[in-house]
Amino acid sequence: MMQTHYSSQLLERAVTEINRLPGIGSKTALRLALHLLRQDEVKVEALADSLVAMRQGVRYCRVCHNICDEECCEICSNPTRDSHMVCVVEDVQDVMAIENTMQYRGLYHVLGGVISPMDGIGPSDLQIESLVERIRKGGVEEVILALSPTMEGDTTNYYIYRKLEEFDIKVTVIARGIAQNDELQYTDEVTLGRALAGRVPFGK
Amino acid sequence: MMQTHYSSQLLERAVTEINRLPGIGSKTALRLALHLLRQDEVKVEALADSLVAMRQGVRYCRVCHNICDEECCEICSNPTRDSHMVCVVEDVQDVMAIENTMQYRGLYHVLGGVISPMDGIGPSDLQIESLVERIRKGGVEEVILALSPTMEGDTTNYYIYRKLEEFDIKVTVIARGIAQNDELQYTDEVTLGRALAGRVPFGK
Repeated sequence: MMQTHYSSQLLERAVTEINRLPGIGSKTALRLALHLLRQDEVKVEALADSLVAMRQGVRYCRVCHNICDEECCEICSNPTRDSHMVCVVEDVQDVMAIENTMQYRGLYHVLGGVISPMDGIGPSDLQIESLVERIRKGGVEEVILALSPTMEGDTTNYYIYRKLEEFDIKVTVIARGIAQNDELQYTDEVTLGRALAGRVPFGK
Repeated sequence: MMQTHYSSQLLERAVTEINRLPGIGSKTALRLALHLLRQDEVKVEALADSLVAMRQGVRYCRVCHNICDEECCEICSNPTRDSHMVCVVEDVQDVMAIENTMQYRGLYHVLGGVISPMDGIGPSDLQIESLVERIRKGGVEEVILALSPTMEGDTTNYYIYRKLEEFDIKVTVIARGIAQNDELQYTDEVTLGRALAGRVPFGK
């Protein structure tokens, strides 16, 4: 990248810090910094404070490991949720995505990733043992595996499935098939093959 | 936009604040917030501090109104710069753009905008009077107008030109023509017309 001449070290430092954010290039960083320079001081402080307060204050639910502000997240502590079902997801964004569907009333278990030997992530780096402990305590009737349909996701699914074999519970995996509004002819063969193999009675 | 379910108010507040930045949508804001959650606390504090420090500390050069950390910017206070030339620009990003060309060794004058009746910006909202005062003090031999080639830029150029008529100095405007690597057939007629009218001897 071309060397930019900053006339202010304070501006340069802010641009450098903003530029560290993923997906924010140096031009965008400069644009954002100059935007903030034009804002009221209280607005810039509100932004800065919200970031530090979040980083310092956010906690992880001791039951499901979702992010929350208390010891226990509002899903786990909500008595109207169905505590017989636990949906296993990779991270907190997946919880948000499923909550947004408004189709699920059970609880969650956030693994914090998937098994990926290439990235040096093994089962012990994830919240798998705490999931097993949760099932061992009883009360859960179904574990829904909702990891990404990748090789790492499949590996993790299988690892969890084996770990839960000893318990008398149902282990299910979310349906894989052709996405809504996708064109059949452009669907990859693995997805299409699985969609055929996983066909269900029409009208259900 | 669909309502997102945040399990943490601290996260939601940070996402809301990041989302206020221009060009940062709610999905990007969430992605950035979750990225910051995974960073060391000191890194998040460094980012937050750089923003507040910039907003509180940045000053405007009392001579050219470029942003700087001192009373006078490093261009104005640099004795090796040619103080006989003053280049008039709209904002600080234009100073950076011209500095990046490494083709200019004179000084600047940052107007802080252009005359735009539509946006309620008149001559008195810009640093035009201070430019006239600067010229009145003597020592400047050429004023280079380097505003954007828009109607507002042209209006401002003309206003400044009239204001400077009383002084015995050269007033120039940066060349307008076809941009490097642009295709002639796709160049708009105003640009092409001006490029023809402003033709220069070949080989110069």
